[in-house]
Amino acid sequence: MSFAALQKKIIQMGNPTVAGLDARLEYVPQSVAEPFLKQYGETRKAAAEAIYAFNCGLMDALADLVPAVKPQSAYYELLGWEGMEMLERTIRYARKKGYYVIADVKRGDIGATASAYAEGWLGHTRVGESGLPGFGADCVTVNGYMGEDAVKPFLKIAEKEDKTLFALVRTSNPSAVDLQDLTIGDRKIYEVMGELVNAWGKGFIDEYGYNRVGAVVGATWPEQLAQMREALPHSFLLVPGYGAQGGTAEDVKFAFDAKGHGAIVNSSRGIMCAWKKTGRDGADYQEAARNAAIEMRDAIREKVEIGE
Amino acid sequence: MSFAALQKKIIQMGNPTVAGLDARLEYVPQSVAEPFLKQYGETRKAAAEAIYAFNCGLMDALADLVPAVKPQSAYYELLGWEGMEMLERTIRYARKKGYYVIADVKRGDIGATASAYAEGWLGHTRVGESGLPGFGADCVTVNGYMGEDAVKPFLKIAEKEDKTLFALVRTSNPSAVDLQDLTIGDRKIYEVMGELVNAWGKGFIDEYGYNRVGAVVGATWPEQLAQMREALPHSFLLVPGYGAQGGTAEDVKFAFDAKGHGAIVNSSRGIMCAWKKTGRDGADYQEAARNAAIEMRDAIREKVEIGE
Repeated sequence: MSFAALQKKIIQMGNPTVAGLDARLEYVPQSVAEPFLKQYGETRKAAAEAIYAFNCGLMDALADLVPAVKPQSAYYELLGWEGMEMLERTIRYARKKGYYVIADVKRGDIGATASAYAEGWLGHTRVGESGLPGFGADCVTVNGYMGEDAVKPFLKIAEKEDKTLFALVRTSNPSAVDLQDLTIGDRKIYEVMGELVNAWGKGFIDEYGYNRVGAVVGATWPEQLAQMREALPHSFLLVPGYGAQGGTAEDVKFAFDAKGHGAIVNSSRGIMCAWKKTGRDGADYQEAARNAAIEMRDAIREKVEIGE
Repeated sequence: MSFAALQKKIIQMGNPTVAGLDARLEYVPQSVAEPFLKQYGETRKAAAEAIYAFNCGLMDALADLVPAVKPQSAYYELLGWEGMEMLERTIRYARKKGYYVIADVKRGDIGATASAYAEGWLGHTRVGESGLPGFGADCVTVNGYMGEDAVKPFLKIAEKEDKTLFALVRTSNPSAVDLQDLTIGDRKIYEVMGELVNAWGKGFIDEYGYNRVGAVVGATWPEQLAQMREALPHSFLLVPGYGAQGGTAEDVKFAFDAKGHGAIVNSSRGIMCAWKKTGRDGADYQEAARNAAIEMRDAIREKVEIGE
């Protein structure tokens, strides 16, 4: 699905947000985790099954409310192959529930290696006469430090499979300035990366005006967000850093175009861990996640009018 | 193991090279793959088992000759979780055989997410009272586009576990110039990244003069290699791009310090696919890999004298 499919879901739900599925075992309520720890002992399998149950519970609670989920690969790799097996199941469940799935993998490698990543996350690999899917996401995040060679192979598979990607431009973390804010002539590095993203995406425009190569720009830098929205008129924006990292609805409004399209704002711990603030030991984790998602949606809708 | 452990292996074998384990099914000789395709059909499992058999065959053939292996994560992710399960087995086998294992994952993310990656690849994760290992590599490659936040969590785990990492500085691919060669004042971006690597590694020096944060600098850019060797006196260098990508022994000699220490040169397809050039349909894949590894070792030794 292209970004148009995501945009349609966003319009339909009136909610331009994505729920991060980044659980560590300590984010899972005791009541959810305990049966698996009893069954499998203190193993990676137990942790993986506990997190899977939690992921599914969250997805059940949010399916009519949030158009997309973003599993962060690191939290699955943490559990070795059992984590990756569970990630595959999580993505399958998400798709069954109708979510747009953004695999937050930030892969960055070149040529044949980038093609292998792209086939694994968005496409198919050939075994004999069979084309076999890998993790089966709709969209991935990529890191373009290695230049075009690291991005074009993803784009090629994305075109073939009608899928999408986001390249890192201006990330939400404090040390983003270490490199991304340094000045080249009259431009900063993230601006140069933005220009590259613009160039890579050329040749396709969906019905909302967006191509297949989106950009990651953090909510914690509203000025740069506004600037990138203007500089990258055809790039869908993925905006991390809302909530826990300090970004607000007032900040993220700059990510949207005049019609209130073209951006999606992520919240991970804000939704996943909402149950930690209600004092009910997680018995209400679904309700708490739902309330947090509604609160975030409404806060953004106060600042952004999402057109048809 | 710190880089000193790798350096010792290199000295002992007189061979500063690392064999890439980057197999796709088409790199595996028919005779190795066929039994698994018969047993499991055209499945990811069949491909994973075929590649595992090939990996083990290569590692058996090279164990007295090559000090390190570098599995490239992309070729395992390509096969979904079955690939990741096989990667874990491959790393376990490599360590049993005495190889230094560099997991070429080029991960780049921040804070808690970077910590999760680091625990998954180099460290342990906690489940109840148990600390459970993930993929169990000795060393990883990382991407520092997001700055210090993306590297320090890896370094923290590396210190705790006595392990190491390589950060991308100047990659071997043609489009490395897209970003890495742009000029900031009087420095290029890869030089700035080099300075960051230098700073991140401070506070530890092993007996050969190296810290825990190495740098990736491609064999295809000998001038930059010489420059980075000088600018990063305490960074072990990982040098990709030898052979298939065009780097020669004459080029890579610049990666070594005055004692012939401080660098390791990778070859992937040159060793893995050597059997494709002998006309024996892969029956001799181990011998062919061995011969290619000896040829590479000898070519580098003609240009670099490896001291004690």
